Amino acid sequence: MYLQEKRRKFGETDGKRDEEKRWSQDEEYFRSYADVSVHEEMLSDTVRTNAYRYAILKNYEKIRGKIVADIGAGTGILSVFCVHAGAKKVYAIEASDMAEQTQRLVEENKMEDRIDVIQNKIEDVEFPEELDVIVSEWMGYCLFYESMLPSVLHCRDKWLKKDGLMLPSIANLYLAPFCDEDYDNRLDFWTEIKSVYKVSMESMKPYAQKCIASHVHVNCMPPESVQAHAHVIKRLDLKHVPISDLQKVKSDFRFRCFGHSEIHGFITWFTVDFPDSISLTTSPYTEDTHWAQCQFYLDAPEKVKQDTTITGTFSLTPNKDKPRFLDINIEYQFDSGPRRHKYYYMNDCIT
Amino acid sequence: MYLQEKRRKFGETDGKRDEEKRWSQDEEYFRSYADVSVHEEMLSDTVRTNAYRYAILKNYEKIRGKIVADIGAGTGILSVFCVHAGAKKVYAIEASDMAEQTQRLVEENKMEDRIDVIQNKIEDVEFPEELDVIVSEWMGYCLFYESMLPSVLHCRDKWLKKDGLMLPSIANLYLAPFCDEDYDNRLDFWTEIKSVYKVSMESMKPYAQKCIASHVHVNCMPPESVQAHAHVIKRLDLKHVPISDLQKVKSDFRFRCFGHSEIHGFITWFTVDFPDSISLTTSPYTEDTHWAQCQFYLDAPEKVKQDTTITGTFSLTPNKDKPRFLDINIEYQFDSGPRRHKYYYMNDCIT
Repeated sequence: MYLQEKRRKFGETDGKRDEEKRWSQDEEYFRSYADVSVHEEMLSDTVRTNAYRYAILKNYEKIRGKIVADIGAGTGILSVFCVHAGAKKVYAIEASDMAEQTQRLVEENKMEDRIDVIQNKIEDVEFPEELDVIVSEWMGYCLFYESMLPSVLHCRDKWLKKDGLMLPSIANLYLAPFCDEDYDNRLDFWTEIKSVYKVSMESMKPYAQKCIASHVHVNCMPPESVQAHAHVIKRLDLKHVPISDLQKVKSDFRFRCFGHSEIHGFITWFTVDFPDSISLTTSPYTEDTHWAQCQFYLDAPEKVKQDTTITGTFSLTPNKDKPRFLDINIEYQFDSGPRRHKYYYMNDCIT
Repeated sequence: MYLQEKRRKFGETDGKRDEEKRWSQDEEYFRSYADVSVHEEMLSDTVRTNAYRYAILKNYEKIRGKIVADIGAGTGILSVFCVHAGAKKVYAIEASDMAEQTQRLVEENKMEDRIDVIQNKIEDVEFPEELDVIVSEWMGYCLFYESMLPSVLHCRDKWLKKDGLMLPSIANLYLAPFCDEDYDNRLDFWTEIKSVYKVSMESMKPYAQKCIASHVHVNCMPPESVQAHAHVIKRLDLKHVPISDLQKVKSDFRFRCFGHSEIHGFITWFTVDFPDSISLTTSPYTEDTHWAQCQFYLDAPEKVKQDTTITGTFSLTPNKDKPRFLDINIEYQFDSGPRRHKYYYMNDCIT
């Protein structure tokens, strides 16, 4: 059932081999969440965890006495927050072996009567009743990387009541051109080699540029790195968006640059919104989160001035072979210059 | 030929599927060295690069007018050092696409008449003449992780003159028990959660301990973390050691603890020696290198006092399926306590 679902989600109709590939990627994915360092990182991210905590507690009127599913429960902290908000029953769904630990946490907090831990893929779970609320922290880098959103929406379609609540309820993916102040410094490394080892290495610079541009980087950028007002690539109303909408995210953009600068590429970030005006944002304008921002470097920087326009198209699709990874294409044009395009494979080589 | 060699090296006689696995691991391995960040890291490691530079320049009398092979040349910097030392001809062997860049470096430094760049696996290279010197920076974490030493020794056996020179010429792998002063702090993270999110997470502590002990960590440890005189697990005379000696490294050890302390596990480091008393060491007693030290944590710390003995056996073998990865077994006993053993798989999950 899980595999059928996957195929439907990503438009895949290939044979056995592809199914095996996908299974094995799922296994890797779930195994990685069984390691404690992932949970240390997520809980250390107080922007993330407090956004969920405040959203759940502030919306207690919509949670009190209700049936909740926490999808990808991890340590189980969001389930505990839901009990704090008065939930009648929380189903904490965790596919990895972490689930044993989730159960221990439930016992430690004496919530066995309120939280049922279920170790299973959400697609395979049979709930004994319909759900009032789905809470999930499903977001990956660039929103969709390693995303479990299709699984969350599958559960929504099958189990959430018509008037049920999604937490979060809205997600937005943003794109903006950026300037990397450290870029020249990094390349100057190759000039400095001469003074250290008496070997000339200028010829490494174009190669270093090519390598930097060949994969996606994840870093917290300073706010001043953003060179134009951000563009919303995709807005997801999580209560209503059909799963099929995730098969391809595509958006034309048009930026007008703030001023004289160099554009090294584009960055993405996202926000998710909860009812009652609570937002979790991963933008460069606010406190850092573990998601940072994703950087897509051009092959070489482009000089711009005030009102230089950058037009183009951003598209993102789950990789055909490994749907937790992403194929990203950016077409772009500076003023009336040549229209170029660049492809990025967002796999486990992001740095 | 390459695959036959591999089989011989690691005692593998399996069929086609295993050969494919191995090929694909080689491809990954060589691709990873085509990324510029690896070379930035290695050149930023001045302890490493200067040790090679001084060793080559100081031994100029053994290099001047000679035929040299630089195995795994990377940027080509060691080849350039050999020309600085007066080599007549240097064959810079680089299997990855980095080789194009090596060629550019040779041209930039106007050494086309002295350095021949060859993009090939060393096992497949046919030299037009015998070699006087083999220089190679082949060492991985724990000396043998992702090691290309078998390839270097294969070249030695086939092409190095009887009186030829290996640079480095000696390698030593060390083991010592260690105390991690940060260990309790890291576990206290789970106690602190209570004050931040009002959720009790003490039950995560044993799980966190288990996770820490479940894989190999690479970190620079302070000298005071070492709790007994180090033991030499393996000494390799690189001129004479047969390739078959790398199939299994096994050594009994006996430590006498310096004083009252907690032992969190064992660390390894290595040194390599060049002629004329030049050493490159990755010990915790000297300046940090990018190799740091490898930490093998026990499931739980053990209290020791002055003269507590720790006896046991350390063994290391290339993984059967993925010979660039390592299977490591440590048997250990504190005084007359129970004899325990712990297995570590040193794969790409080291952190």
